[in-house]
Amino acid sequence: MPAIHRALPALRRIRIANATFQQASRIRLQPSAAAAASRPAYQLRYQHAEAQTEAEPTTSASGADHAPQEQPDRPQQKIKFTADSYPSLKRDSRFKELTEDDVKYFKELLGSESAVIDGVTKDAFEELDAFNADWMRKYRGQCRLVLKPESTEQVSKILKYCNDNMLAVNPQGGNTGLVGGSVPVFDEIVVNLARMNNVRSFDEVSGILVADAGVILQQADDHAAQHGHIFPLDLGAKGSCQIGGNVATNAGGLRLLRYGSLHGNVLGLEAVLPDGTIVDDLSTLRKNNTGYDLKQLFIGGEGTIGIVTAISILCPQRSPAVNVAYFGLESYEKVQQAFREAKKQLSEILSAFEMMDGQAQKLYAKANGARLPLEGEHPFYCLIETSGSNTDHDSEKLNTFLEHVMGEEIVSDGVVAQDESQLQSLWACREGISESSQHFGGVYKYDLSIPLPQLYSLVEEARSRFESNGLMGDSDDFPVMDVIGYGHMGDSNLHLNVVCRRYDKEVEKAVEPWVYEWVAERKGSISAEHGLGLAKKPFIGYSRSETMVKLMRQVKELYDPNGIMNPYKYI
Amino acid sequence: MPAIHRALPALRRIRIANATFQQASRIRLQPSAAAAASRPAYQLRYQHAEAQTEAEPTTSASGADHAPQEQPDRPQQKIKFTADSYPSLKRDSRFKELTEDDVKYFKELLGSESAVIDGVTKDAFEELDAFNADWMRKYRGQCRLVLKPESTEQVSKILKYCNDNMLAVNPQGGNTGLVGGSVPVFDEIVVNLARMNNVRSFDEVSGILVADAGVILQQADDHAAQHGHIFPLDLGAKGSCQIGGNVATNAGGLRLLRYGSLHGNVLGLEAVLPDGTIVDDLSTLRKNNTGYDLKQLFIGGEGTIGIVTAISILCPQRSPAVNVAYFGLESYEKVQQAFREAKKQLSEILSAFEMMDGQAQKLYAKANGARLPLEGEHPFYCLIETSGSNTDHDSEKLNTFLEHVMGEEIVSDGVVAQDESQLQSLWACREGISESSQHFGGVYKYDLSIPLPQLYSLVEEARSRFESNGLMGDSDDFPVMDVIGYGHMGDSNLHLNVVCRRYDKEVEKAVEPWVYEWVAERKGSISAEHGLGLAKKPFIGYSRSETMVKLMRQVKELYDPNGIMNPYKYI
Repeated sequence: MPAIHRALPALRRIRIANATFQQASRIRLQPSAAAAASRPAYQLRYQHAEAQTEAEPTTSASGADHAPQEQPDRPQQKIKFTADSYPSLKRDSRFKELTEDDVKYFKELLGSESAVIDGVTKDAFEELDAFNADWMRKYRGQCRLVLKPESTEQVSKILKYCNDNMLAVNPQGGNTGLVGGSVPVFDEIVVNLARMNNVRSFDEVSGILVADAGVILQQADDHAAQHGHIFPLDLGAKGSCQIGGNVATNAGGLRLLRYGSLHGNVLGLEAVLPDGTIVDDLSTLRKNNTGYDLKQLFIGGEGTIGIVTAISILCPQRSPAVNVAYFGLESYEKVQQAFREAKKQLSEILSAFEMMDGQAQKLYAKANGARLPLEGEHPFYCLIETSGSNTDHDSEKLNTFLEHVMGEEIVSDGVVAQDESQLQSLWACREGISESSQHFGGVYKYDLSIPLPQLYSLVEEARSRFESNGLMGDSDDFPVMDVIGYGHMGDSNLHLNVVCRRYDKEVEKAVEPWVYEWVAERKGSISAEHGLGLAKKPFIGYSRSETMVKLMRQVKELYDPNGIMNPYKYI
Repeated sequence: MPAIHRALPALRRIRIANATFQQASRIRLQPSAAAAASRPAYQLRYQHAEAQTEAEPTTSASGADHAPQEQPDRPQQKIKFTADSYPSLKRDSRFKELTEDDVKYFKELLGSESAVIDGVTKDAFEELDAFNADWMRKYRGQCRLVLKPESTEQVSKILKYCNDNMLAVNPQGGNTGLVGGSVPVFDEIVVNLARMNNVRSFDEVSGILVADAGVILQQADDHAAQHGHIFPLDLGAKGSCQIGGNVATNAGGLRLLRYGSLHGNVLGLEAVLPDGTIVDDLSTLRKNNTGYDLKQLFIGGEGTIGIVTAISILCPQRSPAVNVAYFGLESYEKVQQAFREAKKQLSEILSAFEMMDGQAQKLYAKANGARLPLEGEHPFYCLIETSGSNTDHDSEKLNTFLEHVMGEEIVSDGVVAQDESQLQSLWACREGISESSQHFGGVYKYDLSIPLPQLYSLVEEARSRFESNGLMGDSDDFPVMDVIGYGHMGDSNLHLNVVCRRYDKEVEKAVEPWVYEWVAERKGSISAEHGLGLAKKPFIGYSRSETMVKLMRQVKELYDPNGIMNPYKYI
């Protein structure tokens, strides 16, 4: 029988007596409250004023797990131009440089001062910088023109003009991407979708939402919530990211375990090709077997073959009952056992199964001055969420599951949230890790798909590597503070973070390409959910064969023969 | 309070007393039994001996809902060559005719007598006819060579040779398609996948199955069942159809409501392009954001850009508890109300919501000499299935739902299956319709996606049309016996059947293209789940814009510039 230790006073403890689980708590939510309470909605909005200093990038190429809620509490560091950080990148001389005539054309086309940020005919450096620099403060382009169309027709005319005149284009949604895909590298024109932000329709019966690409994810979810539905995607940046960008990057996030990927949920799509062609595939049908499913190429296409201007998406019924449990475990073997049991016993109500190692939770506590929900130290922690239609049934299932995993000593200790605030506190232990990892100077981040049985070995091997090469230690003499592992257990998606006191080329060299080789040997993916962007373009060969890359290039050339769309990135 | 009428003696009735639902029955299934009992598995196997007679096609171009269990009990009719039924189709003269040297090459390549059916150097008419004629007995090609490769490498060499020599190819799985896509039109070489039938791997934890394209759907599901999982697709032809063909046609079926489409469930795919290139995209990862998701083009590509040779697919946890209820309703408005309530109250456990009109059920009873589960007549019937992890919880949810819909008089009468045999009887009322519709001489079948509120109006308008044009009546003077409507309510997928005593061009003219125009006006789809094949190729313009068709042709030309893959079909 596992010993019961102290628990966070605000949370009722899981207690085991005679192998019977008692006092498992549950929250009861009204459907409307559930909308807000199912997870804390982070209001991440890029503060462009912060992006105007100049220095080394603060983060590695691979991006963060999820965009944290706010900038870490440390001195703002300057962002170098990407062209200076990556001197091997050269501007493609086939692209024309912007002239006053071009700007005049766009101003007439868009017909509104607020639709154009013009750094060609006047000084607009500060205004432009918010669109040039990325959220991670690592990439910074030199764009001198931002266009904000308000209709698909305007997007079409913009692209046609750019294509005819060999002007490079950088499509941009909420600019919350983590691989440098959403900001220009040189002087590409930024086409920002923010003004295309209308919900076009919502069908109460089918749950099908049709909306412009520029609708903020949180707003889309709120809209669905008003009708008792849920947007089938959820991620930390939901307060800023746009649904068009989500689709263009095939965002994964926290609901994928339950609701599946965007390739299944997106029913229709409207996009504009470089030559101005409007791809009118905005179906609101669940089934439509009439020809190749071309829209799929735009899902995860990262704006390299066209700009997504609207989507039609299936929103599932919103669950009135949401429960969250958090527990400590002795080993990764036990994490896997717990996951298998959760899948079996919680089955249709399981909506998240997240894993965090002990180091990740200690780091979170240290960075935030927070107290963890469980006292005592555990090598591993898991957070599970259930969502269902019946509070009593869900609680009973959850209790039976917890009883089993504690009785079998799979889980050492645990708590269950009893109200919305506790639910949010438990989620914060998982979602706060990404921000915490950047808190002490810098972090190299990797977002990887790895077969489940081998998933955690990578963290252990990375740790051994830094222990043996003398780069990791407790004092300031060592660049690496710690190596942490966490992620979406339900999707075999590991976030490996090398937490640093400072950026150091030796650290980077010790990890790359070793980490990609390690993943490739196990037939994993070097980018589970963040995409390729600029950061991972060089490494696609570790996850895709030459044949596949060749076939992808063929598609790129088919749709964008001039190569104007999001150049220097992707494949 | 709705009156309670007689019920099928073998089934316990739903009774309402004081607005309280009593005696709702439930079935309890062990996980292993659930595998077999979740639905009757129809063992449909094409009997080629039956296909050798010659006559008019017995069915219309649009195919059946699901392939029925066996041929109707009526005289076998002859099947005309497609080339004779459709004299406007001409053999493409660019394609070379087969020579003895070609056959010699293939025999050496495949190295086995059983791998080649050679009608070029000898008489093999009877053997070939099973591969030339389709299940619907409507289409019949004139192929003289069938190749049965046993490896992806052999498929690659076959296609490369065909492409180099301008030999047309007809990929073929289980040949259970309903739109003439799986049989040749002229002398295309049939490449049949039946010998590639190995399960390559199954991961217990993730539920990911990797298997050759030629694995029979039923076998794939049985394999998943052994490990407590379920194949995420189910359809009447599961005893014959192959998973490669299912993916190539993007089959929909009965589990789509719950588990979503193949675009979301297929994680990886191996295919061979016409030039012999092996598309090695057989990922077993739930998340992999590294480049364009090219495999999606093969899902629903109907063998026109390559041959699917293997798939990797996510199989959900199998539900130990399965319940089926069947009820009568007064109007289509009430069917919609019942569906909304089922979505809300049964939510995560709802696995099917099927609608049948009164005429469809009467036809089923008449054709099968069967007694319907509910006595008395109802204008509409619904079948709902729940699948979940906890029998008690599911029954409670179902009872609460039934109590509500009966108390509110949404539903007039109903029964719940209490054991496996009852469950199968109830499913038979839905699944037996397709076969019944062909029982009385002929049937024109349409498989349509229509927005839910308007879905049933089409049936009513079609009925009015035949009533007013004098083609429908009770005596043998009228070619049309009845018009019936049924289908997957949960997917807005209507099967409209014009039940005939005989085929009559006047009937066809009264329906086509009117039905396609009607659907197009409501932004529906002229093929929800059956695909295009030969039958619907001329009508794609009703569901897709010229731009979309143009973009599709571009993809076809990219992958199959010589046009050798499944010619005369699709787009």
